Amino acid sequence: MYPETINNLIECYKKHPGIGEKSAERMALYCLEADDEMLQMFAESLLNIKKKVKRCKKCNNLTENDVCSICNDESRDSSVICVVEDIKNVFQFEKIGSYHGLYHVLDGLISPLDNINPEDINIGSLLERIDNENIKEVIIAVKPSIEGETTALYISKALEDKNVIVSKIAHGVPMGADMDYVDALTLELALEERKNMNN
Amino acid sequence: MYPETINNLIECYKKHPGIGEKSAERMALYCLEADDEMLQMFAESLLNIKKKVKRCKKCNNLTENDVCSICNDESRDSSVICVVEDIKNVFQFEKIGSYHGLYHVLDGLISPLDNINPEDINIGSLLERIDNENIKEVIIAVKPSIEGETTALYISKALEDKNVIVSKIAHGVPMGADMDYVDALTLELALEERKNMNN
Repeated sequence: MYPETINNLIECYKKHPGIGEKSAERMALYCLEADDEMLQMFAESLLNIKKKVKRCKKCNNLTENDVCSICNDESRDSSVICVVEDIKNVFQFEKIGSYHGLYHVLDGLISPLDNINPEDINIGSLLERIDNENIKEVIIAVKPSIEGETTALYISKALEDKNVIVSKIAHGVPMGADMDYVDALTLELALEERKNMNN
Repeated sequence: MYPETINNLIECYKKHPGIGEKSAERMALYCLEADDEMLQMFAESLLNIKKKVKRCKKCNNLTENDVCSICNDESRDSSVICVVEDIKNVFQFEKIGSYHGLYHVLDGLISPLDNINPEDINIGSLLERIDNENIKEVIIAVKPSIEGETTALYISKALEDKNVIVSKIAHGVPMGADMDYVDALTLELALEERKNMNN
């Protein structure tokens, strides 16, 4: 019904996660009024993304070079590695701005039920880094699910006889949460990991 | 924080209507995994959209030619024109599939408060069509707002002494609506425009 170019755009937008028919239509029609410079940059970025964007050889984060800007940053504490599930998490931690160590992106979590075993995610390269770099602490920052816990446990076991501290980010009631809406599992976890306030 | 190409993509997605920071990020990262063919088509469509997509010389609908496919379709009833506010409405009517006449896209509604006067929207070209084409009925299909009513009234006045029926789509309680949630204005309209069921 729409002219072909617009139909094509609608189809492309519809393939994006979370975009339905109506939103795709609205976004495609927006392009009719968007400024030329933006459309040019948009199209170029789409064509370049696969050529330019690679994974960092050290931490598996996104980069346009061999090694990412975080691994390359000499002002960072290269003795700490924060292990995360996927790339997005790196940028979440970077946004808070208080973590100054390095990262390691697993690209998944161990999940025997889905046939995802330790060798299917980037655990091997993490162990290599512990052997070759001067790492003092590994902070495991994955979600508190069965897969997350399995992955955390596997990594801590694998690092048992290396001279490195393995820690896990705290799980519990999130800031600003209404206690009425906190689920039972989170409450149980929060209770278990309670902190003594006396000292 | 992300590599430049991804940052650029996020910026472009964020300019789209209804897309915030998080969705833009998700959509940009999706492009990393999208297939090459789709990215190619996406980029080409973005670059072509302004060159290829124009307005129909007759009805102001979108087209890649001088006259749109609807105006060009000889099987359609060229004696009826459905007047709509914007392009999207044409495709809404086309989706129901039961209207076989032509369209006229106003590109706005009269709104003196916003300084939008009859000459700022495509009413002049509508009047010309009535003079030059063999039109028997003009169906006004704009929303039932102050602007919509003003526009409908203006058009019906302007066509008063032409030999053409001017009608307006029915307004009332929408299909499937829960009566509890229908607003007072719609109910008032529905009551006023009630239909006699005896004959």
